[in-house]
Amino acid sequence: MNIYLNPERGQWASLCRRAEQDNSLIAERVEAIVERVKEQGDDALLALAAEIDGVQLSALEVSDEEFMLAEQQVSAEVKAAIEVASGNIEAFHRAQLPREVRVQTQAGVECLQRPVPIRRVGLYIPGGTAPLFSTVLMLALPARLAGCEQVVLCTPTNKQGQVAAEVLYAARRCGVTSVYKVGGAQAIAAMAYGTATVPKVDKIFGPGNRYVTLAKQLVAGRNTSIDMPAGPSEVMVLADESADVRFVAADMLSQAEHGSDSQAIVVCSSRAIAEAVEAEVERQRGLLARAEYVAESLAHSRAIVFDREEDMIAFAEEYAAEHLIVSMKDAWGVVDRITTAGSVFVGNYSPESAGDYASGTNHTLPTSGWAHSCSGVNIDSFMRKMTIQHLTPKGIEALAPTIVAMAEAEGLEAHAAAVRVRIEKS
Amino acid sequence: MNIYLNPERGQWASLCRRAEQDNSLIAERVEAIVERVKEQGDDALLALAAEIDGVQLSALEVSDEEFMLAEQQVSAEVKAAIEVASGNIEAFHRAQLPREVRVQTQAGVECLQRPVPIRRVGLYIPGGTAPLFSTVLMLALPARLAGCEQVVLCTPTNKQGQVAAEVLYAARRCGVTSVYKVGGAQAIAAMAYGTATVPKVDKIFGPGNRYVTLAKQLVAGRNTSIDMPAGPSEVMVLADESADVRFVAADMLSQAEHGSDSQAIVVCSSRAIAEAVEAEVERQRGLLARAEYVAESLAHSRAIVFDREEDMIAFAEEYAAEHLIVSMKDAWGVVDRITTAGSVFVGNYSPESAGDYASGTNHTLPTSGWAHSCSGVNIDSFMRKMTIQHLTPKGIEALAPTIVAMAEAEGLEAHAAAVRVRIEKS
Repeated sequence: MNIYLNPERGQWASLCRRAEQDNSLIAERVEAIVERVKEQGDDALLALAAEIDGVQLSALEVSDEEFMLAEQQVSAEVKAAIEVASGNIEAFHRAQLPREVRVQTQAGVECLQRPVPIRRVGLYIPGGTAPLFSTVLMLALPARLAGCEQVVLCTPTNKQGQVAAEVLYAARRCGVTSVYKVGGAQAIAAMAYGTATVPKVDKIFGPGNRYVTLAKQLVAGRNTSIDMPAGPSEVMVLADESADVRFVAADMLSQAEHGSDSQAIVVCSSRAIAEAVEAEVERQRGLLARAEYVAESLAHSRAIVFDREEDMIAFAEEYAAEHLIVSMKDAWGVVDRITTAGSVFVGNYSPESAGDYASGTNHTLPTSGWAHSCSGVNIDSFMRKMTIQHLTPKGIEALAPTIVAMAEAEGLEAHAAAVRVRIEKS
Repeated sequence: MNIYLNPERGQWASLCRRAEQDNSLIAERVEAIVERVKEQGDDALLALAAEIDGVQLSALEVSDEEFMLAEQQVSAEVKAAIEVASGNIEAFHRAQLPREVRVQTQAGVECLQRPVPIRRVGLYIPGGTAPLFSTVLMLALPARLAGCEQVVLCTPTNKQGQVAAEVLYAARRCGVTSVYKVGGAQAIAAMAYGTATVPKVDKIFGPGNRYVTLAKQLVAGRNTSIDMPAGPSEVMVLADESADVRFVAADMLSQAEHGSDSQAIVVCSSRAIAEAVEAEVERQRGLLARAEYVAESLAHSRAIVFDREEDMIAFAEEYAAEHLIVSMKDAWGVVDRITTAGSVFVGNYSPESAGDYASGTNHTLPTSGWAHSCSGVNIDSFMRKMTIQHLTPKGIEALAPTIVAMAEAEGLEAHAAAVRVRIEKS
C-alpha cells in the first residue's frame, strides 16, 4: 500500500483514477451475440448456453418444481436473514415513494407531476463462484414497491443447468414474476428484444462482467434503459485519530475480496494512522481465504495523508466513492459537508457490509466517479414521472400572449396558430 | 394521412414504429471530432468552427458586452413573455424539490436518502434557423432551483460569430454561469472533457441534431451523464366526438412544423372524426409558411380509428407519446388510465404549445417510445440522491447475525469479518 503525504492538487486527478477497462476487444463479440439473440431468439439462447457455458438446457424458464426444491435447500438461518434484510430494505425504500405534485401555476393553468411505475423490468444476477442473492433483494423489492407489473430475472446456471437455491428462494420471496436460465450478454439481449420465452422489458438492472456491462451499454443506446454505468467496486475510508484501525483494515479487506480490480483507499489525518492501517491490513489478510484476489486488489490500494480536514473532504468529493466510510470524531459534521458518494457509512460501527446486505440502503451504487452525476438504485429507478397539464378557456386566454410572443420569436408560427384558434373560439 | 380502422393487435407494433435513424455513417466522424477536442482542446474548437461552420471566432466565451447588447436587442414583448413563462416553470419545478428521507429501519440502524445537486451541468442549445431560447428556460431554471453550482451553455453562432440575442438574454435571466460559442459534436466533447476555456461538466442536457445526439451517446458510455436518449418530436391526439377538430388539426400542424421527421398521430373514436381532422389539416396547412417541412412530416402522420375506448387507451400506452393530447369527453377519467407518455394535455384548451413554452411543465421529454422507461427533464434530473447510514454499537450487534449469514452464504468471508471485528470490540 503506497502512502502519499499531502499530495498537491495537481496530483489529485491521478490519485483518483480508476483502472481503465479496455472493452474494444470484446465489443465485436458482444455485438454479434446481441444480434444473434435479436434474430434467432430462444434458439440462440440455448445454443449460446451450450457454446459459451457448456450447458445443455432442457428449458429456459425455471419450473415450479425447481422453486420448491430451492425452498427446501436454503437453510433456516439464511431464510431468517433474508426476512430481516428484506424488512429493512422495504422500510427504507417504501419511505422514498414519491408523491404526486400538483400546482396551479396561474389561474386556469394546472400542472401535475405523476409518478408511475415502469411496467416491465428485467434483473440480471451474475452466476459464478458465489450466488449473489442479496442483489435479488436490492432490485426486486423496490421494483415491487414501485408497482412494476412484470419483474423478470435472468441468471446463468451451473454446469448441471441449475440456478443457485438462494437466488431462486430470494426471487420468489421478493415477488419476481419468472426466472430464466440465461447469462451474459445474451441475457441482456433477450430482455432488450424479447424472445418467445423471455419477455421484452423496458429497463434492465443489475451487475455483471464486462460482456454484460457492454451489452447493457449497447441496448441503452437503442431501445432499453439501464440502471447505471457499471465498474469495479470501491471503498474510501476517511480516518482520523478516533478511527479504530482494526475496523478500517477489515473494511478495506472486505472491499478487496470483491475482485482483483476492486479499489480500497484510506484518507488519513496523520501518517501514523496510515501506517497503523497498513499494519492491520497485513495482519488481517493472513486470516482470509480469497488471498489471491485480495493481494491483487491491495496492490492498487492507497493511503493518502492530509494535515487539513478540508483537504480530506475535498479529496473525497473529487474521488466520488461508491462507498464512503467516515470514521472521524465529528463524523456527522463531516458527512454534512459531503455531497459526492454513492452511499455513506457514518462512524466506527457502520461497516460497508451493513449496507451491502441489511441496513436498508441499496447496494447497487455508482462506481468509477459516476457518483458525480448518478444516484444509486432507489425507488425512482423503477418509476417514471409523467407530467400533466390542464388549461381552462380562461387559462389559455391569459397565457396566449406569452405563448404567441415566444413561438413567433422562435419562428414557429403553427405553435402560435394552435393557441390563436382556441382564443378565437372561446 | 392514412386512416386505419380498428387495426388488429398484431399490427400495432408497426403502427407505433418511428422513423429509424441510421447513424452508422456519421459515427466515425463524430468519434473523430470528440477525440480531436479531447486532445487539442480550444484549438480544436476554433478550428472546427472555421471548418464546419465557416466562422472565424476571436473568442470562445460570450463577453459581457455581448450580453449587454443582447439585452438591448430583445423586444419588450419577448422579455415580458419570458418573465411569465419563467414564473410558471419555476413554480412547477420548485414544487418538485425532493425532501430528505430518514428512516430508523430497526433499533440503532438509521438510513437517510439525501438529495444533493449535481455540481456542474452543461446545456446545449442548437442554433439554426430559429433561436430556441425556450429550451434555455426549461433547462437553466430547474438547474438553478436544484442548486447546481455551475451551469454552462454551449451554442453555435451565425456566420458573423454571434449568438441569438434571445438565447443570451434568457441565459442571463435564468442564471447561466457562462455561454460558449461552440456547436455540434464538438460542444458535447468540450463539456465532457473540458478545455482551457470550457469547463468539464458532470451531466449534459439539451436537444440537437444527429451529430450532437451521437456525441452525447458516446460520452454517456464514458465519463459524463446525459439527460435522455433523443429522437424526433412527436404528438398523439386522442379525439372523440367532444374534440374540436380545428384544434386537433392545429396541434398536429404545430408538431409537423418541427421538422420533416416529426410525427403526428390522431387516435379517433370514429371514422367521421378522422376524416374531419384530415380535412381541417388540409385547410389549415395552406395558411402556414413552413410548408415543405409540414408536407414531409404529414406524409408519415396517421389516423387510427378504434370503436372501443379501451383500445384507444391501450394503443396510446403502447405508442408512449412524447406529447399526448386527450380531447375526450371524460378527459380526466381517460388520463387517469394513462401511464405512458412524456407530457399529457387534458381537454380542448390545453394545446401542446402551452407546455412547449409556458404552462410550467418541462418540454424536454422522452421521444421514440422512451416514455416506457424515462421521465422528461424535471428537478430530479439535476440532482443525485446519496444514501447515508449510521449504526450504533447495539445496532450492528443486532444486525450482525443477518449480515454474517448472508455474507457467508455468498462466500464473502471478509464481509462477515468486518462485522465480527466490531462485535468482539463492543
